[in-house]
Amino acid sequence: LTQPLVIIVMGSDSDLPVMRGAADVLNTYGIANEVRVLSAHRVPDKVAALASGAADAGVKVIIAAAGMAAHLAGVTAAHTSLPVIGVPLRSESTGLDGADALYSTVQMPPGVPVATVGIGAAKNAGHLAARILGLIDPAIAAKVAEFRRSLAEEVSAKDAKLRELGVDAYLAEKGR
Amino acid sequence: LTQPLVIIVMGSDSDLPVMRGAADVLNTYGIANEVRVLSAHRVPDKVAALASGAADAGVKVIIAAAGMAAHLAGVTAAHTSLPVIGVPLRSESTGLDGADALYSTVQMPPGVPVATVGIGAAKNAGHLAARILGLIDPAIAAKVAEFRRSLAEEVSAKDAKLRELGVDAYLAEKGR
Amino acid sequence: LTQPLVIIVMGSDSDLPVMRGAADVLNTYGIANEVRVLSAHRVPDKVAALASGAADAGVKVIIAAAGMAAHLAGVTAAHTSLPVIGVPLRSESTGLDGADALYSTVQMPPGVPVATVGIGAAKNAGHLAARILGLIDPAIAAKVAEFRRSLAEEVSAKDAKLRELGVDAYLAEKGR
Amino acid sequence: LTQPLVIIVMGSDSDLPVMRGAADVLNTYGIANEVRVLSAHRVPDKVAALASGAADAGVKVIIAAAGMAAHLAGVTAAHTSLPVIGVPLRSESTGLDGADALYSTVQMPPGVPVATVGIGAAKNAGHLAARILGLIDPAIAAKVAEFRRSLAEEVSAKDAKLRELGVDAYLAEKGR
Amino acid sequence: LTQPLVIIVMGSDSDLPVMRGAADVLNTYGIANEVRVLSAHRVPDKVAALASGAADAGVKVIIAAAGMAAHLAGVTAAHTSLPVIGVPLRSESTGLDGADALYSTVQMPPGVPVATVGIGAAKNAGHLAARILGLIDPAIAAKVAEFRRSLAEEVSAKDAKLRELGVDAYLAEKGR
Amino acid sequence: LTQPLVIIVMGSDSDLPVMRGAADVLNTYGIANEVRVLSAHRVPDKVAALASGAADAGVKVIIAAAGMAAHLAGVTAAHTSLPVIGVPLRSESTGLDGADALYSTVQMPPGVPVATVGIGAAKNAGHLAARILGLIDPAIAAKVAEFRRSLAEEVSAKDAKLRELGVDAYLAEKGR
Amino acid sequence: LTQPLVIIVMGSDSDLPVMRGAADVLNTYGIANEVRVLSAHRVPDKVAALASGAADAGVKVIIAAAGMAAHLAGVTAAHTSLPVIGVPLRSESTGLDGADALYSTVQMPPGVPVATVGIGAAKNAGHLAARILGLIDPAIAAKVAEFRRSLAEEVSAKDAKLRELGVDAYLAEKGR
Amino acid sequence: LTQPLVIIVMGSDSDLPVMRGAADVLNTYGIANEVRVLSAHRVPDKVAALASGAADAGVKVIIAAAGMAAHLAGVTAAHTSLPVIGVPLRSESTGLDGADALYSTVQMPPGVPVATVGIGAAKNAGHLAARILGLIDPAIAAKVAEFRRSLAEEVSAKDAKLRELGVDAYLAEKGR
Repeated sequence: LTQPLVIIVMGSDSDLPVMRGAADVLNTYGIANEVRVLSAHRVPDKVAALASGAADAGVKVIIAAAGMAAHLAGVTAAHTSLPVIGVPLRSESTGLDGADALYSTVQMPPGVPVATVGIGAAKNAGHLAARILGLIDPAIAAKVAEFRRSLAEEVSAKDAKLRELGVDAYLAEKGR
Repeated sequence: LTQPLVIIVMGSDSDLPVMRGAADVLNTYGIANEVRVLSAHRVPDKVAALASGAADAGVKVIIAAAGMAAHLAGVTAAHTSLPVIGVPLRSESTGLDGADALYSTVQMPPGVPVATVGIGAAKNAGHLAARILGLIDPAIAAKVAEFRRSLAEEVSAKDAKLRELGVDAYLAEKGR
Repeated sequence: LTQPLVIIVMGSDSDLPVMRGAADVLNTYGIANEVRVLSAHRVPDKVAALASGAADAGVKVIIAAAGMAAHLAGVTAAHTSLPVIGVPLRSESTGLDGADALYSTVQMPPGVPVATVGIGAAKNAGHLAARILGLIDPAIAAKVAEFRRSLAEEVSAKDAKLRELGVDAYLAEKGR
Repeated sequence: LTQPLVIIVMGSDSDLPVMRGAADVLNTYGIANEVRVLSAHRVPDKVAALASGAADAGVKVIIAAAGMAAHLAGVTAAHTSLPVIGVPLRSESTGLDGADALYSTVQMPPGVPVATVGIGAAKNAGHLAARILGLIDPAIAAKVAEFRRSLAEEVSAKDAKLRELGVDAYLAEKGR
Repeated sequence: LTQPLVIIVMGSDSDLPVMRGAADVLNTYGIANEVRVLSAHRVPDKVAALASGAADAGVKVIIAAAGMAAHLAGVTAAHTSLPVIGVPLRSESTGLDGADALYSTVQMPPGVPVATVGIGAAKNAGHLAARILGLIDPAIAAKVAEFRRSLAEEVSAKDAKLRELGVDAYLAEKGR
Repeated sequence: LTQPLVIIVMGSDSDLPVMRGAADVLNTYGIANEVRVLSAHRVPDKVAALASGAADAGVKVIIAAAGMAAHLAGVTAAHTSLPVIGVPLRSESTGLDGADALYSTVQMPPGVPVATVGIGAAKNAGHLAARILGLIDPAIAAKVAEFRRSLAEEVSAKDAKLRELGVDAYLAEKGR
Repeated sequence: LTQPLVIIVMGSDSDLPVMRGAADVLNTYGIANEVRVLSAHRVPDKVAALASGAADAGVKVIIAAAGMAAHLAGVTAAHTSLPVIGVPLRSESTGLDGADALYSTVQMPPGVPVATVGIGAAKNAGHLAARILGLIDPAIAAKVAEFRRSLAEEVSAKDAKLRELGVDAYLAEKGR
Repeated sequence: LTQPLVIIVMGSDSDLPVMRGAADVLNTYGIANEVRVLSAHRVPDKVAALASGAADAGVKVIIAAAGMAAHLAGVTAAHTSLPVIGVPLRSESTGLDGADALYSTVQMPPGVPVATVGIGAAKNAGHLAARILGLIDPAIAAKVAEFRRSLAEEVSAKDAKLRELGVDAYLAEKGR
């Protein structure tokens, strides 16, 4: 097994369908990662142990995702000196539209920062981890730059096709 | 020293001027309490130790207060089977008007509840603790009932005076 | 019939499918409870009578749930010295995503606290009642501790399986 | 003493400096009114008694004002068939900027309406009561129409002066 | 045709399925009403004419409903001395969950009040109109009191059945 | 090809089904327009180039639409002296109900305004462009006036039919 | 007197200290303007008359500013085919932090757009009007471009000085 | 001069008193940094040039801070592959309590992440940059760990003193 550089931890396995987006992005970059299900409220000691021991185990970045009163990223950041990326998740049944998780993740007290991405933004957590890891591995930095170029090309290609086809034909072709 | 029945823990000593309201209320009820400054993000292990050991030490209720991404009450509840009362605090300089602390305190996941009171409602945390302790000590229950009567009498006295004096004289007397 | 230790009261029988979660949790703990439908705005006198008489009838905790301008928990707390747990409910058709019920339940004035749980958090109301009742009955406290352990084991088991199977196989098995 | 047509009830005498605006407006219209301090949470039975007996006592409209979890107007409406006007009040120290009181006042369940005015809009509560009472007393309706004309004239006079003086001179004169 | 006592005006005929709830309630009370579709932004002059002439035409109350930047109730109130009831409506496709319409309706400037009911609360607009009209017609007041009694009886009957059947059987019977 | 007077630019082709509403409105007015897909975050240089060169290319108005952290309109306005119309879009999966895009679009710093329309209000962006272009082309101004008349007539016709048919028959006919 | 090209209308003369910012900006551009105080709720007919007659009087753009339930811009747009710029204003005493005025101004229904700028953004309303008028007067367009250059130079000069002096000396000099 | 590892860029020099907190923290860690004033809306080309060239110039992390429609961090992230930390700032005069800047900073589209810290959290931006730089420089990582220990010690010392002195004496001593 490869030693993971990034740990992706989430509060519940119901978050997995969204959060796999972070793993998928990291895999695209060839960044070894491990996905964990550990709740700050149900197994706080395991979260503490994971976070406390991560740096020594060779982990570089921890991505932590949770919904509602989303404490997982903050608690993780409290137990490590590594950068921690927080992903606030929206919970359909409990209202507040993700604002609860966003505020619970981003509004950290002085000295214990969480690098927060958008609501449900699992993929951006992966891209942010890659930008950070690019600082220690030029190959990853090159892939991030390449990815940014591909984003630009993709949009440019769509723009060119739209200008060529017009709105109706473009939407018709897309709808196929 | 008396063994405290209630621990009042807060994330920062800047919360003390507001949170002493909880201690004052408990003192009025004659409920032994102890005030602590322990941050979920700065000394997470101490918070865990305090919460884990509280029941065996004879504590019955923990009041936890924090602002912004207010994780203290939730983290406390994760480490104890005692009832935990959460007090969300407003932070003047960081925006969001207390909504961040409220959401971070109340929106707990299934199985780990926090008994949340209003924003900055330190006194109500004390009254709620007293209502809970009234279940094990009839003397406290009697004092809660007595307090409720005094609240009613105080409002009724103001109402009577207002009806007697009229608005202008009432406000003039109050303003003195 | 067993004398109920907990009354679960809600403003409308349309709240019953959510709020039965509180009763289910209490039943798991073996805590006798009774479910009532009483609206603070439609039968205010019955709410007042229920709350005023609850302590003498042997009730220890009242759980009150309502949506929109959710006054039920506050009105209940005004008529008793018992601890009152408030459950704000989301109302699909009337907007505001549950924030209205949350604010109406939690922002109580000094002296009349409501122990508020999250939006729609019926189960947590049950767990909070159990934590409170654990103070007077060690058997319940033991069950709460046992429940907390089971939560931890459940998450740990999921985490172990996820590490063993990987994301794809885990989701495939879960989806079956 | 004149029998009051309008009762103005508020949850605390700290609301009086704002709520006297309602009384002032009613006095301007010559509408007999009485100001009361009665809290839905501290003297719920007095609120119930006041609301239940108001119609028989000759009261036509009840104005109820409260902040935070503002239950007073809704509880009043639950005990009377009279129109109840609700005034949500902002509470400086408890966050949420008045949204809590607004939602707690306006989002009433079907069958028990509260005629809600803006946050802190004590004067508009008085004007709304006058519009309602204008339906039973043409003299009041005439005064409301007259007041509306005076509002128009006041604005028109300011507009004329502003056009005459220009912005600088207008502000200089106003600042004197 | 009977002269309408209440005009129900809305900004779009897409509001009719919700707003017919106001007409239905008024019909139950036997209160003559007329339903109109007139937009403050598309036919402002017709709105002005309707509102200006309403009192002389024998109308007593105007109910105005709109969504988004809901100006209809405020503009109506600007052209009449009658009480105007505002119903803020939620618009699915334009976000903000009805908060936009609520704020646009309730936050009126001093002197021009709108009696605002909850988001989408068409029925409560009807009940509020009936409470107001009860001041000039004792028969309507009696019907409002009767309706309040029926609300209470309906809740009490549900409560009795729930206590008799228990949660499972109650929900099973309701689900049939 | 006709030289476009209006450029409609959006951040993603997933915005096209909504934003075509702007093109449709402009086409109705006979205003030449071009639809582009260019993201402020993926091809910032192309956005800069498009905006910087628009005036010299004969463009008069730029409509820019984006969701979430909607920077497109502001970035466009930073690179041109032309009026820029911003359309905030709601993103279903990322919460916040469009408030994020609205705030990101409208709250521009002094000196760089964006003419913001409502959430998802593609059509209104078209109508606003037409009002602006009506200042340089009386024919367009005449069409805007004609459109406003048609809006009025459409509402008036619905109002007349509703008064004739009544609510039930009107809804039945509409539902066909 | 010069015929004004821009009318700046506001709901109250208490808005004048903020809204004079729009006039100041227009004066800088040499754009003739007139400032008016006219309320949509107090003198609706004058607002209608002003808006209806503006185009024929040679006005090109109307800036309308209001707070709370800010109907002025929308009502103005309903009576003219000219572009209308809306400025939502914050009202200190009535809560909601300007969100009420923003939503009431921007969320206009299809067909009646308001070009909304930020909360209290009087200056940006002036700059937006200048961008629009630049379409009919190249001299104004040139001044807008010149203003944008001056903005850039001002920021660049501050940046250069900051790099030269460092943070401490820069703040010290600025504080003088 | 030392080559800066971190660039701190802000939209206006009025942000400097808050944002110097980031520089102060970096200086404490001995991390070379440079403070810049560059607005995404006033000098977009300079922002693009700074961001595009940062990696080649040896910069490792960019901290970008802005208020209101805070585009600076997002625009910066669009022009670099480096990690970008965004600091949303509250603007007193423009309402919305910092929510506008938070949403504008954090809700970035897929592929272009911004590592967002709390509202006004300049210091946490510095600490987060240090955590990231700790991955490439063990000395910095050691200082972060040391800082975390000092945070813990500071809180523990306050807690010990509070337990020793009690609330009154503690506040008295602090107030001196």
